[in-house]
Amino acid sequence: MKTRDRILQAALELFNDQGERKVTTNHLAAHLDMSPGNLYYHFKNKQEIIYELFLQYEVRVDAILEVPADRQLTVEDKVNYLRNVFQGIWEFRFIHRDMEHLLMSEDRLHARYRDFFRRCQLKTQAIYQGLNDAGIISLDRQAVEGLALNTWIVVTSWYSFLQCNLLLGADQAITQDMVQGGIYQVFQLERPYLTEQYAEQVETLQKAFVPKPDWL
Amino acid sequence: MKTRDRILQAALELFNDQGERKVTTNHLAAHLDMSPGNLYYHFKNKQEIIYELFLQYEVRVDAILEVPADRQLTVEDKVNYLRNVFQGIWEFRFIHRDMEHLLMSEDRLHARYRDFFRRCQLKTQAIYQGLNDAGIISLDRQAVEGLALNTWIVVTSWYSFLQCNLLLGADQAITQDMVQGGIYQVFQLERPYLTEQYAEQVETLQKAFVPKPDWL
Repeated sequence: MKTRDRILQAALELFNDQGERKVTTNHLAAHLDMSPGNLYYHFKNKQEIIYELFLQYEVRVDAILEVPADRQLTVEDKVNYLRNVFQGIWEFRFIHRDMEHLLMSEDRLHARYRDFFRRCQLKTQAIYQGLNDAGIISLDRQAVEGLALNTWIVVTSWYSFLQCNLLLGADQAITQDMVQGGIYQVFQLERPYLTEQYAEQVETLQKAFVPKPDWL
Repeated sequence: MKTRDRILQAALELFNDQGERKVTTNHLAAHLDMSPGNLYYHFKNKQEIIYELFLQYEVRVDAILEVPADRQLTVEDKVNYLRNVFQGIWEFRFIHRDMEHLLMSEDRLHARYRDFFRRCQLKTQAIYQGLNDAGIISLDRQAVEGLALNTWIVVTSWYSFLQCNLLLGADQAITQDMVQGGIYQVFQLERPYLTEQYAEQVETLQKAFVPKPDWL
């Protein structure tokens, strides 16, 4: 693996585990058994590393939210979108852990995130429109827009929701199970729009994501 | 006004304007033209002031979310709940501005907030059940729970959503108009459950809250 990629991988790991604020470039260099000078040769500061990791996250989410051009969407697609999105949140959870601080401290990243948000809104609208065209849900244009925005808010706030409302103290860790619990909430958002034909099938799928009582 | 209340009022003002992290007890004392010693006589540290302000916010929200015992809910109630809740968010916006930091830095406040969240969930469920019983919306138990939780997430994340996704830079301020724009999004959540009898009336009311294009 190239040194640059090793740095990014280690940074992602440490940021996720300890929170980005607590990890300095010196920690990171020590963790990699690398001189700070060598690290600075690849990234001039921590902000550069964060920005690069965000670009990776962006590429990942952009790919997840594609709508197939050659066929209609299926119920399995609907579940896969959610699984993959929440898997991405888990793997890049440092972004969602302290997002306001992260974005407010660098204008370039903030501007990039705003563009990402707008693009994701259009893609999410296209997915909901596709599910409508496939007869899985039924909704008008205003509902497509409302649902896409509310989905964005629930998905991107889920990690913070867990931290603020469910943790039992600063020491309790958020698990991947808890993060995946957000899938159930997005199903709840979409549920009133399900067509009669698909309601039962989708509700059965939703049951697989019922939050476990030990953490709710 | 009692000195203690003057301190709380000034703290709320400064926290809202500048963010709680940037305001020290020394700033606060200077702003009040008071010696730090006098301030410490009333509150032993900033955490005490924050906690007291949160209790005020809690009393406020608890009162807003009451369901009248002697009559059915009306469409006007539905709008008033939202107006009052978002007015409260505006007046205590420092809480929503940096909530994770605020809660993660004090276990006592975090525990209190968790209880507040659970109580609010029950109250919000009672409101949605009441709107169902009044024939304004129609939904089953699973939908009551899903809608109450998604409403909580959208309402409590709205301020952070604005900061992360809509601001044009760290300098742009969030206005009360922007905060009140969240009302439209909660209408969107409830919209698929509206009964035929009330759909038109509620949609007309919702139009008053369409976000202004100059900030979205």
